[in-house]
Amino acid sequence: MSEEMGISTKRDEDFSKWYLDVVRKGGFVDQRSPMKGFDVILPWGYAVWEMLQQRLDKNFKRHGVQNAYFPMFIPESLIKKEEKHFEGFKAEAFAITEAGGEKLEEKLFVRPTSETIMYHMYSLWIRSYKDLPLKINQWNNVIRFDTKGTKPLIRPREFLWQEGHTVHSTKEDAEKWLKIVVSMYKDMYQALAIEPLVLVRPKSDTFAGADYSIVFDTLLQDGKVSQGPGSHLLGQHFSKPFNIKFLDESGKEQYGWQTSWGTSIRQIGITICHHGDDKGAVLPPEVAPYQAVIVPILFKGKEKEVLEKAESVKEQLRQLGLRVHLDDREHSAGFKFNEWELRGVPLRIEIGPKDVAAGEVTAVSRLGQKDKIKISELSEAKALLENIQKEMAARSAKFLIDNIKDVHNMDDLKEKSKAGGFLRGNWCSSGECEASIKAESGHEIRGTLYGKEEKCFANCLWCGKPAKHVVYVAKAY
Amino acid sequence: MSEEMGISTKRDEDFSKWYLDVVRKGGFVDQRSPMKGFDVILPWGYAVWEMLQQRLDKNFKRHGVQNAYFPMFIPESLIKKEEKHFEGFKAEAFAITEAGGEKLEEKLFVRPTSETIMYHMYSLWIRSYKDLPLKINQWNNVIRFDTKGTKPLIRPREFLWQEGHTVHSTKEDAEKWLKIVVSMYKDMYQALAIEPLVLVRPKSDTFAGADYSIVFDTLLQDGKVSQGPGSHLLGQHFSKPFNIKFLDESGKEQYGWQTSWGTSIRQIGITICHHGDDKGAVLPPEVAPYQAVIVPILFKGKEKEVLEKAESVKEQLRQLGLRVHLDDREHSAGFKFNEWELRGVPLRIEIGPKDVAAGEVTAVSRLGQKDKIKISELSEAKALLENIQKEMAARSAKFLIDNIKDVHNMDDLKEKSKAGGFLRGNWCSSGECEASIKAESGHEIRGTLYGKEEKCFANCLWCGKPAKHVVYVAKAY
Repeated sequence: MSEEMGISTKRDEDFSKWYLDVVRKGGFVDQRSPMKGFDVILPWGYAVWEMLQQRLDKNFKRHGVQNAYFPMFIPESLIKKEEKHFEGFKAEAFAITEAGGEKLEEKLFVRPTSETIMYHMYSLWIRSYKDLPLKINQWNNVIRFDTKGTKPLIRPREFLWQEGHTVHSTKEDAEKWLKIVVSMYKDMYQALAIEPLVLVRPKSDTFAGADYSIVFDTLLQDGKVSQGPGSHLLGQHFSKPFNIKFLDESGKEQYGWQTSWGTSIRQIGITICHHGDDKGAVLPPEVAPYQAVIVPILFKGKEKEVLEKAESVKEQLRQLGLRVHLDDREHSAGFKFNEWELRGVPLRIEIGPKDVAAGEVTAVSRLGQKDKIKISELSEAKALLENIQKEMAARSAKFLIDNIKDVHNMDDLKEKSKAGGFLRGNWCSSGECEASIKAESGHEIRGTLYGKEEKCFANCLWCGKPAKHVVYVAKAY
Repeated sequence: MSEEMGISTKRDEDFSKWYLDVVRKGGFVDQRSPMKGFDVILPWGYAVWEMLQQRLDKNFKRHGVQNAYFPMFIPESLIKKEEKHFEGFKAEAFAITEAGGEKLEEKLFVRPTSETIMYHMYSLWIRSYKDLPLKINQWNNVIRFDTKGTKPLIRPREFLWQEGHTVHSTKEDAEKWLKIVVSMYKDMYQALAIEPLVLVRPKSDTFAGADYSIVFDTLLQDGKVSQGPGSHLLGQHFSKPFNIKFLDESGKEQYGWQTSWGTSIRQIGITICHHGDDKGAVLPPEVAPYQAVIVPILFKGKEKEVLEKAESVKEQLRQLGLRVHLDDREHSAGFKFNEWELRGVPLRIEIGPKDVAAGEVTAVSRLGQKDKIKISELSEAKALLENIQKEMAARSAKFLIDNIKDVHNMDDLKEKSKAGGFLRGNWCSSGECEASIKAESGHEIRGTLYGKEEKCFANCLWCGKPAKHVVYVAKAY
């Protein structure tokens, strides 16, 4: 796949352009498909997605979630059952009106999300408390006619994701389950070496048809935030219109309590924007498809012994459990260095004739550190990778803490928000104040911390009346 | 998921009805979704799909195939580039004409298969012989407005599949690759314990835009055959209109040589129809999501010790590498026996108070054999599973051989075809004779053996002139 190499834009010159360069040249996404927002996920980008999938899927199954698959087309009549939900989605759904050249009797929508079709089936399956909890997940593609403007991975029109949908016999059970979901997403963020803020969104930004939404917000290097997985307490808002009822232990008919939760390929975009540098992406070792790439340094007459040693080093690293790749293409070593840096491989292992003679390799971390490792002690590469993961996580935690600033009033907010990041202020909880804060500052209330009540330290940012919540304010993607 | 248990129809009474019963009650598919042909793949059915996916995906990667993802919507203009291909598919494609409530400028088709969108991208990626071979696979959903009538898993309108698409620098390379593809699909059939016929289809039934198509035909218990994976030599039929060109080693511009190949959830339906019995599905151990299910036999006062022993047996079997499930639900043992037989679990392990006392369990094979196994010798369960796999494969091979009958003329064909199965005859290779054979007998020429030339033993079935090929004739789904 011949392509001009190297990134021409630095992050602090034009973050958006830098990002587009990295996703394309780093082999994550190709946007040159014939339709805007419908991008091609390239093999390297897809391989990162597989890493995330495997990790999440294992966790889901450990917690009793079953995978299944539901139809992609949803008849209009079914979506209309939950009105708020329908209002929220009809504006962004693609509609099928023809098949085999003939007009269809009923308009079909392409799923932007699957609540309606899944809950229609749930109502047929659930009869008794013995059928609960029902915990089903789908790995699929969804399509949204987003009009805010598209961005590869971050805001595509078609995206790959998982959507989990559960039914419980009580609200308490549903909320307990959401805690487990949050812990599974936290585990994903740990693998991504990203320190997120886990927030409960204000009412205005809650998922259509939910009581509340728990979201993961990540601060990107341009000072804006991007929303990761959302986990929603749906309460009985869907079980009533969709008639998901069960007989409880006393034989009384009850409506089920529901949750839904999902995460997508956006995580890959978030990771690039959070960790990347002017050379390209930086992938944390736990999700990098290749954790180490071996680049042989070839000189005339020495090719064979270097390649043989490289092959043997690869095999040893593989046996140590590393995901390792030997790049034996015809290209120059410099070309390969650039390419794997662009792609974000955490560790580069160089082997030249001198290394072979000395019985060692040169290990270059994507974070810049250079080490010599004895071939007899290759397990040190494992330790290096663990250090890279830790170092990335530590940098992320520091980046978050350094970029949360307490603000006491609007002037304070406007001044401190210039540098980007989160502003931590107080809010009376009125929707009017929320809207005014956004209108005046361009920053929005992202929510309150999930699972941890914080004590107000000032009055409401907007109205100056006594505040109810400590909220995090930021500019969002 | 409360549901009436047990199958009311026997295979030889009404095979179709038996099949619908098994897929629904065995937990494979629920057809009660709001649209015909758009079925729900239930957790048990999806778990079988995951088993097949894992096996194939590992093989693909071992042979250098990379996974990627391409957009689901394809603009009309792009599909039109390969005319024969467009003719073949436009009649069965769903069309999007609206998004967000507004009419789109260009009609979009929902992919029935992805040649066009993938090859559009390939033409941007490939420049030099160094970029070849390019071997990319997608795991996705495709949608076809099939008008022949739908059948869950076998002929749904939306199905899950994989589609692999390669580009090579020579025809020889492309054909060599197809041999590897066939070997990977053979491995899948081995896991399914099914003996297929691997055939090259006659021209009339070749994939639209291909030079030839290699397919796997499986004989089902009703005497009809169902087509599994198809692997196609596309030659330069797509590379020319899509402009997939490369500079060869001498610097000359050449068009690429292509292949495409895919297999789908239909394999699950084929497996059920091939191996199932009047009690339900019979899954071969290599693809069964649970290879063994432990059913504790509970008597009042003895529950605790039986359950504890069952738990310990489960843990030991798990450590032996078995996929094992302990069914500790409140239902009766008889209910559980029925359910797991319906689902096709290869081995049932019963433990009652007497077994606990004797330090043993009762192992009941889905094929009917009953054994006592000492708890100190649980590895015998592994041997039992291997035997079940072998026995199923042997039965399948015998079933195929017993149901291939040589025929010398049309009367012979009509007489012997009454019992179903394959008829092996001779053909002059003319399209008219092929059409006449089908019109007269209702049976079609499925093709010639792939990779093995057979010597004609009679004249053409229809015209009586000298024959060119030994062909296999059958009634197809």
